[in-house]
Amino acid sequence: MDQARARRLLVEARVAVLATVTPEGHPHLVPCCFVLGGDTIYSAVDDIKPKSTLALRRLENVRSHPAVSILVHHYAEDWSALWWVSVDGRGRILEDQVESGMALGLLGAKYAQYQEATPPGDILAVGIERWRWWP
Amino acid sequence: MDQARARRLLVEARVAVLATVTPEGHPHLVPCCFVLGGDTIYSAVDDIKPKSTLALRRLENVRSHPAVSILVHHYAEDWSALWWVSVDGRGRILEDQVESGMALGLLGAKYAQYQEATPPGDILAVGIERWRWWP
Repeated sequence: MDQARARRLLVEARVAVLATVTPEGHPHLVPCCFVLGGDTIYSAVDDIKPKSTLALRRLENVRSHPAVSILVHHYAEDWSALWWVSVDGRGRILEDQVESGMALGLLGAKYAQYQEATPPGDILAVGIERWRWWP
Repeated sequence: MDQARARRLLVEARVAVLATVTPEGHPHLVPCCFVLGGDTIYSAVDDIKPKSTLALRRLENVRSHPAVSILVHHYAEDWSALWWVSVDGRGRILEDQVESGMALGLLGAKYAQYQEATPPGDILAVGIERWRWWP
């Protein structure tokens, strides 16, 4: 795999796994929908199910510990077809209204589900600092 | 979801995402095959592709920072069908030969791919301390 293919696989993936680190230094995982805009990943905290404190843990973690990692991957029983792409970066909660609007526009363009109901929650932005992939 | 269903979904999942924390405190992600034995998850570092230092990062991380998290999840375009199960625990590299053999037996029973070629690398064990799930 090369950088161009890694980027294409990330762009096309419908779901990713987001890893943050808790204030106590433990890893915390959650799947998320996302979109890539330039070299920034945007993900919204939506309300398709009742919100819980757990659903918002990722935002608390990012505020106290901005280093995050995001993974997309493909699994198949033919293990010669496996691949993954991971990016490391710094997370931040969007405060700028223009950037928030742009992120919502990108998310709506990728996911028809968001066109029916714009996610009302905070938006997490992750500026990509490092790419990794396999094979 | 309840504990019994969360456990069943974890047992049945063919692939998980493993999160470790680097010595610098950054999250690190990799997909992995795994098996649940009692309340311990076992995962082998196999050699289906040429090993790289990256492939072994997870073991270095666990040695310096044993808190790990593991996620299995289901994605579908019908977002009412989404679910995830995550377990937090402490990782350790197996040294006991009997436990290593048992883990390889369990992995071979779950994955026909391992019956053709026993994974030659280290085995990571994660003792589960906490379950989380959604919805």
